[in-house]
Amino acid sequence: MPANSSKGTRNERKLVNLLYEDNFGVMRAPASGGATERELPDVFAGDGTNFYAIEAKSSSEGPIYIDRNEIDCLNFFAQKFNAQSKVGVKFDIKNGDPAYGDDDNPGWYFFDPDELYVTSTGNYRVKKEKALQDGESYSEFIEP
Amino acid sequence: MPANSSKGTRNERKLVNLLYEDNFGVMRAPASGGATERELPDVFAGDGTNFYAIEAKSSSEGPIYIDRNEIDCLNFFAQKFNAQSKVGVKFDIKNGDPAYGDDDNPGWYFFDPDELYVTSTGNYRVKKEKALQDGESYSEFIEP
Repeated sequence: MPANSSKGTRNERKLVNLLYEDNFGVMRAPASGGATERELPDVFAGDGTNFYAIEAKSSSEGPIYIDRNEIDCLNFFAQKFNAQSKVGVKFDIKNGDPAYGDDDNPGWYFFDPDELYVTSTGNYRVKKEKALQDGESYSEFIEP
Repeated sequence: MPANSSKGTRNERKLVNLLYEDNFGVMRAPASGGATERELPDVFAGDGTNFYAIEAKSSSEGPIYIDRNEIDCLNFFAQKFNAQSKVGVKFDIKNGDPAYGDDDNPGWYFFDPDELYVTSTGNYRVKKEKALQDGESYSEFIEP
């Protein structure tokens, strides 16, 4: 869970809307309910050729941590749908910071899970600098 | 919308759980929220080989009607994910009626949209008799 959950939810909904505007079919995990939800990606998107199971994480500034279990679940789900697992990160810093994003760049950066740094406890971490340097920007992501 | 929406929701959740127990990855549309929801299937399920976008409809007894627009949306979504469109119907009559289902048969019957009867107004209709006679039972559906 992001530190600020409602902000995280809003960012996630914006990502869904962006993908939809860019002609993807998009499904977002229900906020609560069924037995299977712990294993669902935040966003599932497809353009007819490429299918992505996306774990979407926001941070107000600090590094983003992702539990190994979440990635295992993401990969499990992706395998069921012949999709690619992706981790999307967004740092909500302030306007003017390239990590914040603007009209041309919504500020999301995407990684394959196996590109992420693994911590000593076996979980995953993404720092803002890593995202900016090595992540796929949104526009790169949607035109692979 | 089914006449009894909460019963319809419960049936839909049961279907999600059944598919999950049978080793499918399953995603259920959020109950409310984003801009894209009108075009989402009720259930999206995949077993690694077959992918299904499912419109799930329950009725307490009478025929089930599905708007043409819902089917158009289902097909649009399915095409984005290289999935098959399916309409799943369940008639909640009473115990002992084969349409009600039992432990061996949960009472769902599945159709490809183009197998459905088209009404004079261009929408779709499924009668209980048609479901029992021509629909794929749940066990047929999961082992195509």
